[in-house]
Amino acid sequence: MEVFSLLIILATSLATSHGSDLGIPHQIHSLRPQSGSSGAHVPGLSCLSWRLGVEAHNIIGWTTIPQACANYVGHYMLGHQYRKDSRGVTHEALLYAESLKLVGDCKDIWVFDIDETTLSNLPYYAQHGFGAEPYNATLFNEWVNKGEAPPLPESLKLYKKLLSLGLKVVFITGRPEHQRNVTATNLKNVGYLTWEKLILKGSSETGSTAVEYKSSQRKMLEKKGYRVIGNMGDQWSDILGTHVGNRTFKLPDPMYYIS
Amino acid sequence: MEVFSLLIILATSLATSHGSDLGIPHQIHSLRPQSGSSGAHVPGLSCLSWRLGVEAHNIIGWTTIPQACANYVGHYMLGHQYRKDSRGVTHEALLYAESLKLVGDCKDIWVFDIDETTLSNLPYYAQHGFGAEPYNATLFNEWVNKGEAPPLPESLKLYKKLLSLGLKVVFITGRPEHQRNVTATNLKNVGYLTWEKLILKGSSETGSTAVEYKSSQRKMLEKKGYRVIGNMGDQWSDILGTHVGNRTFKLPDPMYYIS
Repeated sequence: MEVFSLLIILATSLATSHGSDLGIPHQIHSLRPQSGSSGAHVPGLSCLSWRLGVEAHNIIGWTTIPQACANYVGHYMLGHQYRKDSRGVTHEALLYAESLKLVGDCKDIWVFDIDETTLSNLPYYAQHGFGAEPYNATLFNEWVNKGEAPPLPESLKLYKKLLSLGLKVVFITGRPEHQRNVTATNLKNVGYLTWEKLILKGSSETGSTAVEYKSSQRKMLEKKGYRVIGNMGDQWSDILGTHVGNRTFKLPDPMYYIS
Repeated sequence: MEVFSLLIILATSLATSHGSDLGIPHQIHSLRPQSGSSGAHVPGLSCLSWRLGVEAHNIIGWTTIPQACANYVGHYMLGHQYRKDSRGVTHEALLYAESLKLVGDCKDIWVFDIDETTLSNLPYYAQHGFGAEPYNATLFNEWVNKGEAPPLPESLKLYKKLLSLGLKVVFITGRPEHQRNVTATNLKNVGYLTWEKLILKGSSETGSTAVEYKSSQRKMLEKKGYRVIGNMGDQWSDILGTHVGNRTFKLPDPMYYIS
């Protein structure tokens, strides 16, 4: 009975305190509460080491997270550590941006990716195994087309501060061009009110990898006279390639991998 | 009394089980035992987030670790997680190497850095605050010149397996040329018995950053017909720049940063 009460308290606490921070009301998760999000033990595999390997770009080209780490990743994403890790990155980005002397000609830009960088698909992934289920394009696009993705709170704060420093923001996303309206509306609804450009993947670019597509778009921006001061994404493919910018920042994302 | 006994047991366990794994006998550390190496709380700062930021190359250009994280980093380095994280990287590297079809012309090479990649300076850093004390070249070189650095156990295993796959090993280190003999002897004494090349930093290169020096050395290797199949280091400067190799691997190192 006591254990059951504890489960209820933990589940409620997860759903309210963190859920509401991300604008996710009344999520129901089948997570088994554990003592912490950073030390779950799986025989023969450390999920913490797996996550570090992913974030440091040692583990690449994976399609789903290790099944044994599904609970671990769920706890991480819904718990404190994901927020703390994100804050660590945006804090560093802000320190960097504040150290700059901008020319003031409106050509200094900060490139943001969208999914898991400025908008969070955690409400969707929480219902689909946190990356343990294979990617389902139909279901994911249904979710995107609702336009209900909450912002990543730390990224939204950074976005506002960058604007106040005089930087212009450019979004470069792998979302297809036909999702422009829903994406723009979603961004505005959650607080990203203005941008210099919102770049989506055109039909001619569907054959390109994210690295190729995003490098090419950044190259075109530089040709137009923009300077990519900072570049932030949750995938290494957002910040590798060419014309990556003066500094790059990798937000955490242990749920999926895009090459 | 019970707490005291627990402290003694923990301290002994740290000093013997992990110390001896790395060939560090009877280390005395002034660490305060904590409940785990991955979740130490420091007000206003998550050391776990700081470490992730370092490993994912978000936090760069630092000279010492945050003072508040000294205990945390010490526990991490002497505890299980450092070994597990290293194993995660070398395991991924081996999977990659085993997937290759080598030409068999002895031109396929694997580049290893030395310090904190193949040889461990943990016995030195354990006596110098695990990166909390500013770098002291005199004392560090005294340590290096003893030639007593133990191997990183996971890297040594990987090294042996790579050789058995038919790869040649090239060491590229920031150690200066005049430490060649002591370095070669140290490597051999701990189990790295053979290599294609051992490249140290010449006096003409002292003005170059690690990225410049190592890129230039890899370029020369490629000019000589070598193919850099893999490239492994504990610093991002080991694996960034040009001619980085077909795949790169970043081993953990939260103790120091080299640009």
